[in-house]
Amino acid sequence: MPRRTDTRQRMVRTAAELFRAQGYHATGLNQVLSEGGAPKGSLYFHFPGGKEQLAVEAVGLAGSDLRDALTAVLAAEPDPAKALSQALELLGRQLLASDFRSGCPIATVALDAAADSEPIRVACEEVYTSWQAVIAGHVGDEDLATVVLAAIEGALLLARTRRSLDPLHAVGARLGALLGRPTT
Amino acid sequence: MPRRTDTRQRMVRTAAELFRAQGYHATGLNQVLSEGGAPKGSLYFHFPGGKEQLAVEAVGLAGSDLRDALTAVLAAEPDPAKALSQALELLGRQLLASDFRSGCPIATVALDAAADSEPIRVACEEVYTSWQAVIAGHVGDEDLATVVLAAIEGALLLARTRRSLDPLHAVGARLGALLGRPTT
Repeated sequence: MPRRTDTRQRMVRTAAELFRAQGYHATGLNQVLSEGGAPKGSLYFHFPGGKEQLAVEAVGLAGSDLRDALTAVLAAEPDPAKALSQALELLGRQLLASDFRSGCPIATVALDAAADSEPIRVACEEVYTSWQAVIAGHVGDEDLATVVLAAIEGALLLARTRRSLDPLHAVGARLGALLGRPTT
Repeated sequence: MPRRTDTRQRMVRTAAELFRAQGYHATGLNQVLSEGGAPKGSLYFHFPGGKEQLAVEAVGLAGSDLRDALTAVLAAEPDPAKALSQALELLGRQLLASDFRSGCPIATVALDAAADSEPIRVACEEVYTSWQAVIAGHVGDEDLATVVLAAIEGALLLARTRRSLDPLHAVGARLGALLGRPTT
């Protein structure tokens, strides 16, 4: 039983990394199996719902990983603008470490698969809602949290495309103005 | 000659619409040919570089279409925050009309293909740079234009995922604060 759980968990994690970098459609199940070190034929044993089920679970895992990281970063710094700048730095390090392949953990799937799969769309929506809730807990307003999340998501998209962290820095430097406080 | 040009142009436009909604990998060349009303086998006649060349041209076309629309909207309204809110309304109408499939014209391709194709990445980067230049011409600052573009891109991503225009409205309402001016 523990080994079965390990294999399943490893497949979800491998899928999450592949979906993050290249999206749903470019990721083949064989690639998930081979990079996850799982035997051929084991995918439908663990995921009777196939690739769609795998994607829903991968989006959920990627979402809770970043939600936990965001929560930790924001809990350690009381100033919201500074705390969000540190969250941007964390995301920037992930971009750099992946040679600009790993941006937002779920944005690629949200754009390339959510329109055609309601379960995947709902999984992505729940993740964005969970991140927004963490941000709202620090900036104190749901609409403002939406704008902050949008700015971070857009900055990650532009940074990936430009292969540069400049968009993250530009957003980080303007967070104070956005939050209605002087930047420190 | 005119008909040849028409066919080619129709294929680029069809491809741009499909890439916008579902990304690079989910879009098959047969789908581009059938939806564009082009004969089988004509793709490599018009695009010797295949799907990658088609994507580069489709990204360029989608980019110049939105750049022209942005330019027109911003030229008609002197107040930058109001003008950008009107640009968000235009993008919101496109989302609604497409049942939330047509968000940013190039973001899906930027995320699902640009990491693996340098020509596609460069095409996406040039488009973002062109939109940013239009925005910078109205807000007067390149870094601020980056943040505005990031917020708009992120809002489109969240709006598609949530099937709601609320993220666009939230960003529109905060543009004044972001631009350092009271919202009117």
